[in-house]
Amino acid sequence: MKGLGTSAGIGIGKVLIYKDPEIKISKESVLNSELEVERLNQSINKAIIDIDNIYDITLEKLGEKEAEIFAAHKMILEDPEYINSIKEKILVDNINSEWAVSEITNSYISIFNEMEDEYLKARAVDIKDVSNRLLRILLNIETKDLSLIDKEVIIVAEDLTPSDTAQINKDMVAGIVTEIGGRTSHTSIMARTMNIPAVCGVKNITDIAKEDDLMIVNGSTGDIIINPTKDEVILYTKEKEDLEKLQQKLDKMKGQESISKDGYKVELAGNIGALQDIDKVIENDGEGVGLYRTEFLYMYSDKLPTEDEQFEAYKIVAEKLNGKPLVIRTLDIGGDKEIPYLNIPREMNPFLGYRAVRFCLDNKEIFTTQLRAILRASAYGNIKIMFPMISSIEELRQCKFILEEVKKDLRKENIRFSENIEIGIMVEIPAVAVHSRQFAKEVDFFSIGTNDLIQYSLAVDRGNQEISNLYNQFHPAVLSLIRMTIENGHKEGIWVGMCGEVAGDEKLIPILLAMGLDEFSMSASSILKARYLIRNTSKKDVEGMLDHILNLPTAKDVERYIDKNIMIHNLDK
Amino acid sequence: MKGLGTSAGIGIGKVLIYKDPEIKISKESVLNSELEVERLNQSINKAIIDIDNIYDITLEKLGEKEAEIFAAHKMILEDPEYINSIKEKILVDNINSEWAVSEITNSYISIFNEMEDEYLKARAVDIKDVSNRLLRILLNIETKDLSLIDKEVIIVAEDLTPSDTAQINKDMVAGIVTEIGGRTSHTSIMARTMNIPAVCGVKNITDIAKEDDLMIVNGSTGDIIINPTKDEVILYTKEKEDLEKLQQKLDKMKGQESISKDGYKVELAGNIGALQDIDKVIENDGEGVGLYRTEFLYMYSDKLPTEDEQFEAYKIVAEKLNGKPLVIRTLDIGGDKEIPYLNIPREMNPFLGYRAVRFCLDNKEIFTTQLRAILRASAYGNIKIMFPMISSIEELRQCKFILEEVKKDLRKENIRFSENIEIGIMVEIPAVAVHSRQFAKEVDFFSIGTNDLIQYSLAVDRGNQEISNLYNQFHPAVLSLIRMTIENGHKEGIWVGMCGEVAGDEKLIPILLAMGLDEFSMSASSILKARYLIRNTSKKDVEGMLDHILNLPTAKDVERYIDKNIMIHNLDK
Repeated sequence: MKGLGTSAGIGIGKVLIYKDPEIKISKESVLNSELEVERLNQSINKAIIDIDNIYDITLEKLGEKEAEIFAAHKMILEDPEYINSIKEKILVDNINSEWAVSEITNSYISIFNEMEDEYLKARAVDIKDVSNRLLRILLNIETKDLSLIDKEVIIVAEDLTPSDTAQINKDMVAGIVTEIGGRTSHTSIMARTMNIPAVCGVKNITDIAKEDDLMIVNGSTGDIIINPTKDEVILYTKEKEDLEKLQQKLDKMKGQESISKDGYKVELAGNIGALQDIDKVIENDGEGVGLYRTEFLYMYSDKLPTEDEQFEAYKIVAEKLNGKPLVIRTLDIGGDKEIPYLNIPREMNPFLGYRAVRFCLDNKEIFTTQLRAILRASAYGNIKIMFPMISSIEELRQCKFILEEVKKDLRKENIRFSENIEIGIMVEIPAVAVHSRQFAKEVDFFSIGTNDLIQYSLAVDRGNQEISNLYNQFHPAVLSLIRMTIENGHKEGIWVGMCGEVAGDEKLIPILLAMGLDEFSMSASSILKARYLIRNTSKKDVEGMLDHILNLPTAKDVERYIDKNIMIHNLDK
Repeated sequence: MKGLGTSAGIGIGKVLIYKDPEIKISKESVLNSELEVERLNQSINKAIIDIDNIYDITLEKLGEKEAEIFAAHKMILEDPEYINSIKEKILVDNINSEWAVSEITNSYISIFNEMEDEYLKARAVDIKDVSNRLLRILLNIETKDLSLIDKEVIIVAEDLTPSDTAQINKDMVAGIVTEIGGRTSHTSIMARTMNIPAVCGVKNITDIAKEDDLMIVNGSTGDIIINPTKDEVILYTKEKEDLEKLQQKLDKMKGQESISKDGYKVELAGNIGALQDIDKVIENDGEGVGLYRTEFLYMYSDKLPTEDEQFEAYKIVAEKLNGKPLVIRTLDIGGDKEIPYLNIPREMNPFLGYRAVRFCLDNKEIFTTQLRAILRASAYGNIKIMFPMISSIEELRQCKFILEEVKKDLRKENIRFSENIEIGIMVEIPAVAVHSRQFAKEVDFFSIGTNDLIQYSLAVDRGNQEISNLYNQFHPAVLSLIRMTIENGHKEGIWVGMCGEVAGDEKLIPILLAMGLDEFSMSASSILKARYLIRNTSKKDVEGMLDHILNLPTAKDVERYIDKNIMIHNLDK
């Protein structure tokens, strides 16, 4: 069977079917509604005590970030609007608390479920979790306790609530399989945090798998095997051990230099979006941040973030990096990233549309507010500014002109900023790669954005399933454009980085190293693996292969060649 | 004032306001409905005689193609479904013919108006035209006769019906201005056929302009001037004369070789869509067809065209070209070209989506039917096959493989086709231009599709008004990709053509000539101008400027350089 692997790794263990106790609610009249409200109050107090308890446990076991959700749960139970609606329903309709809680909660959930925003949609899960806790207390239903598990199990559930996952002892859980959820569901996020392999979206698995069945879970591929053969168990056990060995190897990479076998040094940085991502980068010994996606500040909000809010966010990251470089990309909205309150009109082809600097240059107030915030934060760290979706030198010059105006204003106001702040552009539009020699004359650095570069170079929407076979990072033309960009950058004496997925691609890292890429920025979890690869590659050896590779006819030819001639230092060996 | 210029040229004359006589219809009971039907019959007969008359006049004045519409009008009056519906209404409701005609006609018109297809929508105009003629006869309203105009006028009307334009004596009409209509409206098409300057979509112009006002119409820019100053009259009269002189110059280009001043010969071909476009290409002395857009066969139909239907269409064009080359592009749907009966799912970014060969390779029956039709037609002329939207060599190889299978089948069936038919691809995706050296090894020719190439290279949807300033054919990266493609093609010994708008761009023709482009394919009306330009350009002179031009920073720099250093043979001089 197959689902969506959302937390990598292999788990082998006995199935534990975990179903939420069924909660049946009927509508009943009460004689004294005042007394009923009092019963509700007591139950709420009990629930808050339970939640405080779980908060403390989680704080200790997993840390502040993971515990936060229970602070949010508590806030729901202290939200006067929510609670008073329930009380009012009891008093007006003369009905039992259970019915009132259930009715009011359902109306809240349906409102959240209708929201477009995935983040807000996920809030429905929290309300459900909290209200179920309250209902169980009102109904005197004992809660099954996941913290009591005492052997290595695979938890099989419809889904797990935050309250459920908080109880999990990660040493006793070999894997998690759920019927619903995706990469960003709570279960998946927590599984990754706790390093437990997880597979989501396996329909009817709570009916198909039986308690105590042996199960193998492959969180990397999404495969699950119920009652595997002996050979399968041997095979997966071996693979599991290999993965663990690899992880140990990679852990040893912390604190090492990112330097090729023949002594060529590069910078391995991380991409971040949400503020907390920076912790992961530091944890994985990233040497900087090559891409800070600032649009997250705009997306998880119902209005434009103020200059101060932005300044604070940028400053925190800059300070955490402690002098290491931080490349802040200016607002890149449009395309697949919508921000409802900006009312950008719907377009026929948003990926070829009004986005990023195209939008910012038309909305100077939004743009200058961000530039002011970035410049102010530049006094607190090693910040660089990067403009996305540049297609012409005119646009770049306009961006630089506006930046200079903002600098002038700051000087007038005696506000500190880094006078020598570096300015760069994303190279993600084919024309810019082709014309990179001229662009290089007007910036301090390039960062190649391969996700878009591939999509435009091949005219393939990377989100379109129908043609996903055509989106291919090994296409020799894509590699040629990358090489062209690096070489032209170097001819004009600037450094060239990369912040698209390709920067973390095992098979392409040696190629990029040989092309002379100076900085690789990737998701934090790939950094140590990249360092391992670079330390095991000789730049000169691969350099000699580049001409041949770029003249191969097809992407498949390229991948095959790399497999055969370069990936000799395969990580699994 | 400004409208949409839909037929080029300048017209100066007195305004003639042309409004359709108002037709007022009331519902009246009739005593003898049988007699009323007889009255209708007589009016229909009278209308048919009138239409036959106009058919003959048009045939003589403008030719068969233009007269066809009146054959269609006659068919409407002979359509039993339409006429019997009217008669039934008279008989059942016991009402007057005028009311019945009007009611039934309106229901027909509303059905056509609801149709998505622009072509079918336009049919509503024909029905309206015919029914008005019938109503005027029934009501004894005299029709205003445009054929009686005896001085040079500018006709100002809400819109003109086919019956109206048929009466126009082109020597007596200096221009046409209408309130409604676009480039493909009947008025615009006829104006272009008759070489009368026309501007459409000028709101309320029949109220604003007064009878006998002096008016200047610029069909190239869409400008109109009511009661111009003396200076304006002088200026535009001069411009009108210049244009006429230019036209004479261009007419002299017919029968001349397309050869540069220094003896470099190229091929100037036309792009065609609808079948009749081929006549324009021949009329303008095109040396072939560099792009036959076959999707028109699929779009103006409610089902897939059969193999025989396609074969007939391709054969007609091939025979008309009489041995000159005909490049047939296989079906390029998707993107902005929708075909309802194919049920292609809606996409987020159709321009980066499931279109052209991407669709054909998944729908082999549709693809092989077309390839069979093309191959069969290749026995009747100099046909070449071109595949659109190729992004990888794998796709090209798949197309060629299927073509070979189709050839095998034809051989088995003893069906004739050209065994040596040339195979080429559109170069319209940046990756293909970059990797053109390898692609050139597997085809007989390239044709550069600049419209898409620019759009993908710059990541700018060419239909998106919000960013239209970023779509620019002078972008040095675009020119570099074109040069790369031509040079790589030549290195592998194949010819390289171009069938995008750039091929007919006055300022870029000298540049393309210098790059070595072998074939320029453009709209028929640009061919003679292109020949004039090429005959006045020295290839070697411009060759020496190419490196400099391609290294200029911006599109504006490029255009300025061309204006200053190359466009010395400006057509207006």
